[in-house]
Amino acid sequence: MNTYLKRQKKVSSLLAREDIALLVLCDREGMRNCSIRYLTGHPSDSVLFIFVDGRTLLLPWDINLAQIKATATQIKPYNDYGRTLSQAVAKVLEEEKLPAGSRVEVPAELPYPEFMKISADSRYQFVCREGGLTAVVEDMRQIKDDDELATLRKAFAITDDILDKIEAVLRKGQCTETDIALLIDREARLAGAEGTGFETLAAAMGRSYNIHAFPAYTGANMPADGLSIIDFGVKYDGYTSDVTTTITQNLNKEQERMVRIIEGAVKVAEGLLKPGTLTTELSGAVNDFLEKNGYVMPHNLGHGIGLYIHEKPFLRVKVDPVKLEKGMVFTIEPGIYDPQLGGIRLENDYLITDTGFEKLTRSRIIRL
Amino acid sequence: MNTYLKRQKKVSSLLAREDIALLVLCDREGMRNCSIRYLTGHPSDSVLFIFVDGRTLLLPWDINLAQIKATATQIKPYNDYGRTLSQAVAKVLEEEKLPAGSRVEVPAELPYPEFMKISADSRYQFVCREGGLTAVVEDMRQIKDDDELATLRKAFAITDDILDKIEAVLRKGQCTETDIALLIDREARLAGAEGTGFETLAAAMGRSYNIHAFPAYTGANMPADGLSIIDFGVKYDGYTSDVTTTITQNLNKEQERMVRIIEGAVKVAEGLLKPGTLTTELSGAVNDFLEKNGYVMPHNLGHGIGLYIHEKPFLRVKVDPVKLEKGMVFTIEPGIYDPQLGGIRLENDYLITDTGFEKLTRSRIIRL
Repeated sequence: MNTYLKRQKKVSSLLAREDIALLVLCDREGMRNCSIRYLTGHPSDSVLFIFVDGRTLLLPWDINLAQIKATATQIKPYNDYGRTLSQAVAKVLEEEKLPAGSRVEVPAELPYPEFMKISADSRYQFVCREGGLTAVVEDMRQIKDDDELATLRKAFAITDDILDKIEAVLRKGQCTETDIALLIDREARLAGAEGTGFETLAAAMGRSYNIHAFPAYTGANMPADGLSIIDFGVKYDGYTSDVTTTITQNLNKEQERMVRIIEGAVKVAEGLLKPGTLTTELSGAVNDFLEKNGYVMPHNLGHGIGLYIHEKPFLRVKVDPVKLEKGMVFTIEPGIYDPQLGGIRLENDYLITDTGFEKLTRSRIIRL
Repeated sequence: MNTYLKRQKKVSSLLAREDIALLVLCDREGMRNCSIRYLTGHPSDSVLFIFVDGRTLLLPWDINLAQIKATATQIKPYNDYGRTLSQAVAKVLEEEKLPAGSRVEVPAELPYPEFMKISADSRYQFVCREGGLTAVVEDMRQIKDDDELATLRKAFAITDDILDKIEAVLRKGQCTETDIALLIDREARLAGAEGTGFETLAAAMGRSYNIHAFPAYTGANMPADGLSIIDFGVKYDGYTSDVTTTITQNLNKEQERMVRIIEGAVKVAEGLLKPGTLTTELSGAVNDFLEKNGYVMPHNLGHGIGLYIHEKPFLRVKVDPVKLEKGMVFTIEPGIYDPQLGGIRLENDYLITDTGFEKLTRSRIIRL
């Protein structure tokens, strides 16, 4: 049985346990959901119906693409189902003649007014909940299996190679943020990647104090005196890496101290990376370390990566504690930012192993 | 008064009319909403509170960026408000002490479970509805004012210039899809654009039959015999263009006919572009023309452009009829696709004027 069918079976068996007759997932603009790619291989807009009896029905926006990429019991054009989620759900329920009172679960991300429209059909019981089956599939996705790790390792290898190329270019002389961003894009695709995992951020000193530089890259010169940030990922067969390097040149004393603080923060985090550590504990330890050194980190410590650039587990302070488990892959990315001094962030990707962790990428502070 | 304050006043005056004390808008991953940029100038993740008395409170994720870019009565870090929408709403309601029973409107895109959480506070009446104030702001955005048109014209000029550069490169000889995509990105930024409006699609014959090529571009050679598609946009100061050209080389007879059909479809559409035409009527006429010629268009005829790449008005068949009005800017992009023959799409941007239309971009079929 292929990987996708195995995953579909696993989900449909969960439906029985939760007394759900039909689970509906949707991947569309404004409501992206990589779980459909995870379950079927289809990489683009679609609606997926998973029945408790194990059957699946995929309604892709692009039927040609689905016929090449997707695995499902049935694949039919979204076009034939009215091209809106509510119409598609209504038509499938009509065709399937599920017993009255059947429980139908829809995505937890479904907008309130749209849920009210779909659930107006009183023959069925519609379920839309946090922590429901949408979340259970996301939980499945946060533990990477061997196939996924093999794919991710390809993304990491390309990423490391690009980091070396960036360092070589910057050591050779002047270029621009745009040169760096386009180098990343070109090298990624040359190496067989689908592209970058997200819009590359390249922010020379002067813009690096923004957490996410805006615009993402410009004609500004790189390298530049001070702290400059490059944040990018490589997407291979759907799976994305995510790393950040900071380029330093002619730092003043406080900027030097910022570098040491961030390298120290990475050590604090790595000291806690093993099965059983709570994400909140990990994030809290790093925040405490930074605050003891006079800085506040204005973003989370890290996030899971995989088919989506920001997925479970989320490394947050105080909220959503999750125990680290073998097979989780996520970023650790401490960063501090100051309008005058600039910003610094160092981000690598990590895998939780049986007893500790494996560092999957080789990003570092590049000192010129 | 600056443009942003004017727009904020206009919205807050609508609150009074609808008996809403507070409107909450949110721009975040998974729930993008360019209305916050439209109303404040802030281009990135944030929550915006608009009070009926005209005050506004912006909670940006990146306070540094907001302090440079944003206009609002008050700007405070999202960090101080718990960094989730429900916590931010609760804290603002606490601080503001709105009278019990006040109506608070939240975005129509808010997920059902999140709305249930926020609306659990029984002191207020929470409103989440299609066609509510979120939609009213989107309706404001679909009629471009003079400032917006001036900005869009800069995006269009850069776009046309890039189209000429693409044509020149392709006439000179062989390159790859990636070369074309990176040329577009580089030229856009050199010309002062924020970047591309969306991921460029460059699909040589062999992949052009996909509506949206996947991956978006690869190392495949361009030009190639048959039909090859390039779809891109340029984002200038937030506003994006959107054009598609099809490159032809050594076509067979049916491919030649596809070109004539698409050029005919554009003429059918242009014949109806004037104030008063219904979007459904326009889309229906083009679909009928294509079907009479033996093809079915698997996507909509076009969509508004502006701060977001797909915004109102949507040119759909049968659903959501909207009367074209002076000041609307949208794409017309008939396309037909066949796994063997390849795909063809021709897309330009149009402005509705007092009596008809202005064609804003110069995309065309490039015959090699």
